[in-house]
Amino acid sequence: MSLTARNRVFELPLRVYWEDTDAGGIVFYANYLKFFERARTEWLRSLGVHQQALREATGGIFVVSETSVRYHRPARLDDDLRVSAALQSAGRASLTFVQQARLAPAGATDGATDDTGEPLCEGTIRVGWVDAATMRPARMPPHILEILK
Amino acid sequence: MSLTARNRVFELPLRVYWEDTDAGGIVFYANYLKFFERARTEWLRSLGVHQQALREATGGIFVVSETSVRYHRPARLDDDLRVSAALQSAGRASLTFVQQARLAPAGATDGATDDTGEPLCEGTIRVGWVDAATMRPARMPPHILEILK
Amino acid sequence: MSLTARNRVFELPLRVYWEDTDAGGIVFYANYLKFFERARTEWLRSLGVHQQALREATGGIFVVSETSVRYHRPARLDDDLRVSAALQSAGRASLTFVQQARLAPAGATDGATDDTGEPLCEGTIRVGWVDAATMRPARMPPHILEILK
Amino acid sequence: MSLTARNRVFELPLRVYWEDTDAGGIVFYANYLKFFERARTEWLRSLGVHQQALREATGGIFVVSETSVRYHRPARLDDDLRVSAALQSAGRASLTFVQQARLAPAGATDGATDDTGEPLCEGTIRVGWVDAATMRPARMPPHILEILK
Repeated sequence: MSLTARNRVFELPLRVYWEDTDAGGIVFYANYLKFFERARTEWLRSLGVHQQALREATGGIFVVSETSVRYHRPARLDDDLRVSAALQSAGRASLTFVQQARLAPAGATDGATDDTGEPLCEGTIRVGWVDAATMRPARMPPHILEILK
Repeated sequence: MSLTARNRVFELPLRVYWEDTDAGGIVFYANYLKFFERARTEWLRSLGVHQQALREATGGIFVVSETSVRYHRPARLDDDLRVSAALQSAGRASLTFVQQARLAPAGATDGATDDTGEPLCEGTIRVGWVDAATMRPARMPPHILEILK
Repeated sequence: MSLTARNRVFELPLRVYWEDTDAGGIVFYANYLKFFERARTEWLRSLGVHQQALREATGGIFVVSETSVRYHRPARLDDDLRVSAALQSAGRASLTFVQQARLAPAGATDGATDDTGEPLCEGTIRVGWVDAATMRPARMPPHILEILK
Repeated sequence: MSLTARNRVFELPLRVYWEDTDAGGIVFYANYLKFFERARTEWLRSLGVHQQALREATGGIFVVSETSVRYHRPARLDDDLRVSAALQSAGRASLTFVQQARLAPAGATDGATDDTGEPLCEGTIRVGWVDAATMRPARMPPHILEILK
């Protein structure tokens, strides 16, 4: 599974609801971090990694240690998004992801369409593995590293 | 479409992410209002009603005017929920919904299971139709009432 | 402290930020539950009850078990609110609060003013005391009950 | 006001509530973007700039175009934070801020104390001025630039 799993770009469909918007009429920028996390979570789930079960088994959790996001164009209520997650690098105690949010391709749904294909928003997210009790960095469980390699 | 549309219980599958939880280790109670709204929105979408398009066409939006929610058991990270929306009554200017959040039935997914079938949380939500510019109550567009009847 | 503490209406000043609003240009209704909780938390703090310290000392936490909220008029970005919390009843395992959000009185600040004095939003919130490990109802620590009586 | 206003570090006191935390028992990382925005908003307010009034007067709003945040140590429920905002640079259509969140100094309150003085979290936030109707970049109103210079 290694090369395929590691190199493919995972993509999560995601709808914009009222809760995601702000008084500017657009998605509140901090919420893209939530969208990105949903995509990373579903990418992990697609590899058989369930974070709650993993915590119960190992006592460890992933925490975000660094984010860098650029916002190009706004998304709006009812927009149909595609949020990607691609693993850029994996160390013993951290993972780095490149992520994007785009409008769904024209015709993909009944909703918004995108004629440019350019991302609305893109970012680099670094997550570390920590002991949940102490929040101190720890080595990722070997079987997780194995799945990601 | 009337009787079927109006009387059936619409159900939205929904995953619990980190963003939904709080330091109690459970879903933050205010977030069930978000879950309920996602279900109402998808129910409307399933009837062909898109709120953003509707606003652009009519100048009106739905706003929540009353909520009543009881919390029975907590949901946790990674739980696989089913959130329902059923129209209880429809007036000229408002709609009342009965809604529930449950764990997905055992075996439905790879995730959480529910051996009781009882709701985690249930509520009654009243939404009014208002002029988006003034936020004053208004009569719902006739074609919307027609769809809901 | 009993009668004074129990019967007085606690009031928290609170500003509306972008994060609180939605594409309707108003405060997203679910966020009033956050505002109400901030007021309950500061009311408890004013009585010397710090929830994180209390959890570490007793293993218990407050969880919301029931909410009932009516929304009368919307708040907007930059509005200066006053959010109240008044204890309505206290049992061995639960507390019931009556809460309101209002605009600050005219002249109170440089911001929004309220010429009516009527609440934007009001609700009744019931919170139970539970064992944080099991989430099962438990008896409130006696010294807490003593403070609230 | 120019040099003082521009160069001083503005600091906002801020309490961590249940709504800010996640199941890791710490402040959910995306919420620091909310904290940073509250600090920028209050910094603007301290200079006499009210965003809602500004929008009504000019038709323009600030939108975030780029964020870069590093998370060093977690904050927890009830922590008493100090969130800073310092203007790093100001152009005709955008502002760049350097921001930090720290624990309040020991003895500052009844709550959390910080023996190191190091930031929990720090970031660089770039905001642009746009026409609210089109979301396209626009020149900042001259009197705003004047205040910031």
